[in-house]
Amino acid sequence: MNSRLHHITNAMTTNGWDLLLITDPKHVYYLTGFASDPHERFLGLLLTHGEEPLLMVPALDGDAAAAASSVNNIVTHQDTDNPYELLSKQIQGSIGTMALEKDQLTVSRYEQLQHFLPARAFQDAGPVLREMRVRKSKDEITKMKRAAVLVEEVLTQGLKQVKIGMREIELVAELEYLMKRLGADGPSFDTMVLTGTNTALPHGVPGMRQIEQGDLLMFDLGVYAGGYASDITRTFAVGHIGTEQERIYNTVLAANEAAISAVKPGVTYGSIDRAARAVIEEAGYGPAFLHRLGHGLGMDVHEYPSVHGRNEDLLQPGAVFTIEPGIYVPGVGGVRIEDDVHVTDSGVEVLTSFPKQLTVIG
Amino acid sequence: MNSRLHHITNAMTTNGWDLLLITDPKHVYYLTGFASDPHERFLGLLLTHGEEPLLMVPALDGDAAAAASSVNNIVTHQDTDNPYELLSKQIQGSIGTMALEKDQLTVSRYEQLQHFLPARAFQDAGPVLREMRVRKSKDEITKMKRAAVLVEEVLTQGLKQVKIGMREIELVAELEYLMKRLGADGPSFDTMVLTGTNTALPHGVPGMRQIEQGDLLMFDLGVYAGGYASDITRTFAVGHIGTEQERIYNTVLAANEAAISAVKPGVTYGSIDRAARAVIEEAGYGPAFLHRLGHGLGMDVHEYPSVHGRNEDLLQPGAVFTIEPGIYVPGVGGVRIEDDVHVTDSGVEVLTSFPKQLTVIG
Repeated sequence: MNSRLHHITNAMTTNGWDLLLITDPKHVYYLTGFASDPHERFLGLLLTHGEEPLLMVPALDGDAAAAASSVNNIVTHQDTDNPYELLSKQIQGSIGTMALEKDQLTVSRYEQLQHFLPARAFQDAGPVLREMRVRKSKDEITKMKRAAVLVEEVLTQGLKQVKIGMREIELVAELEYLMKRLGADGPSFDTMVLTGTNTALPHGVPGMRQIEQGDLLMFDLGVYAGGYASDITRTFAVGHIGTEQERIYNTVLAANEAAISAVKPGVTYGSIDRAARAVIEEAGYGPAFLHRLGHGLGMDVHEYPSVHGRNEDLLQPGAVFTIEPGIYVPGVGGVRIEDDVHVTDSGVEVLTSFPKQLTVIG
Repeated sequence: MNSRLHHITNAMTTNGWDLLLITDPKHVYYLTGFASDPHERFLGLLLTHGEEPLLMVPALDGDAAAAASSVNNIVTHQDTDNPYELLSKQIQGSIGTMALEKDQLTVSRYEQLQHFLPARAFQDAGPVLREMRVRKSKDEITKMKRAAVLVEEVLTQGLKQVKIGMREIELVAELEYLMKRLGADGPSFDTMVLTGTNTALPHGVPGMRQIEQGDLLMFDLGVYAGGYASDITRTFAVGHIGTEQERIYNTVLAANEAAISAVKPGVTYGSIDRAARAVIEEAGYGPAFLHRLGHGLGMDVHEYPSVHGRNEDLLQPGAVFTIEPGIYVPGVGGVRIEDDVHVTDSGVEVLTSFPKQLTVIG
């Protein structure tokens, strides 16, 4: 049994769960090594105290599961089977307390489970998995570093294509092509390229605007590679930008660096947000920093924790999250600088390494 | 009250529902005209017999909802509110039977509803919405025609870029760029370009293979435009192809046309699948047609109905679905030809019009 299955089996004991049914495909991958997208078909990992873990997969995934999964006890179901009924036949005797992923499971599936596997009680396994996922292993950090290296190579090569007159959506197409070309699984979210005053829209959508001299040019992009996400934002100057834009840039950079310097185990996520926000407020741009500082990063591009001023949870070694302060001034422009950071035993390791000093291109 | 709200209010009476809570953002759009992505925040449309419909949206969407929604009674919630508790305060007296979208609602949300809105019974609203959506209105057909026109223009312009030596993923990037350039909201699924023997993989993923003389070249792509999807497949010959490939092409084309000719109200979906399959079996390629004939198309690129040989549901006017027979011969290649069809009162209207005769490019 691998160490994650071992860990979660212990958590079952601690929580008084007799059975645990995992149905989120990402968590099946996390616990068994078998990655798949079952679409509407049933995929489930059933853990029962004192028994071999059981992986139930659609028939067409049977061979792939056998090849990739660390769980050997694999049961397949056909489209004509009822997978819940099939699952119930694998369980001996009456069913005690069963844990499920209540944030992922639909009511339709829950009712099937209640019918075919009438447990004494159904509890939520979500918090246990969340707590496991927040502490990344060495192997996960290695994968996340690769995702960061890849996206930075995409940005490096993409920048070489920038020309006056190019449209935002043309650059998006170029960047997403480079992601695939360089071996990423794909973008980890919709690639964002904004130009000029469009950069003042924190949730702007790339469009037909063309790059002009004097523009701020903002890139926010990430890739999935090996199942893990990266996420980086850099803002550039196209030719000569104004003094206010430069002042905004340097304020955001100082906020980014102040937040990174504050990262270490045992402090609160709120304190990291406040470290960045204080720099921006000090410069008089407080109300223009419109969003939280960042978000957890891992198998999902947005996952626990949310890095905002009221989050008093403590940073722990192995956590990975983004630090992405921004200032958005309508009519003037916006700057955001985003890094991915890893909380180490003693402090911080920054996974992204793309230069941050104001760079003039074009 | 718009006609869809009127229709669903009647369905509430028929089904004995006292309340109906819609939480799928697509269905909120369908019923009110307000499109949004609330992410993890709560969005809900509550219908109660004899009362004004109530739309509850996150505070930051309040203005957008007021501008777009045909429902005037809008309640907003802050991130610090419990939206279920807020919703319960809108309901007078005890709660009878409440219908929900059980295929969409998570167990976590269901438990919140059970706690704050303890209805006598919770029933599934899914089948009623599915039945409404299958019969597209004139306005919906107009939107779907636009999505078809757009994707055909993308294909027309994309074909002009095809050159010997170009990689599959380069063409994908070009096509997805054209989608945005021409005004689509985006691809309705991962754009597929396969070349040469890769075309024999019905679920192949575009990669680094380069276009060669004598290749089959398969495009499967679609766009979302105005909230509705298109989906088209065409296969081309790059220079001179072999006689077996040509025979496969002409068989698939005949199967596509036979299926389209069979479309009219009142026949079964199974009969449409069988009309295509008979042509392919007759030519000796039966086992090489590895998948169902097609799928429903609308606000989702895959929706009800599934067009396969065992579906004995009847075609009804307003239904839109794909017809996409294919033959896949390992080592030789694959051909698929896909159109989007609309069932009219008397027969069929084909929404896609891109030429289907074998065309040599390059």
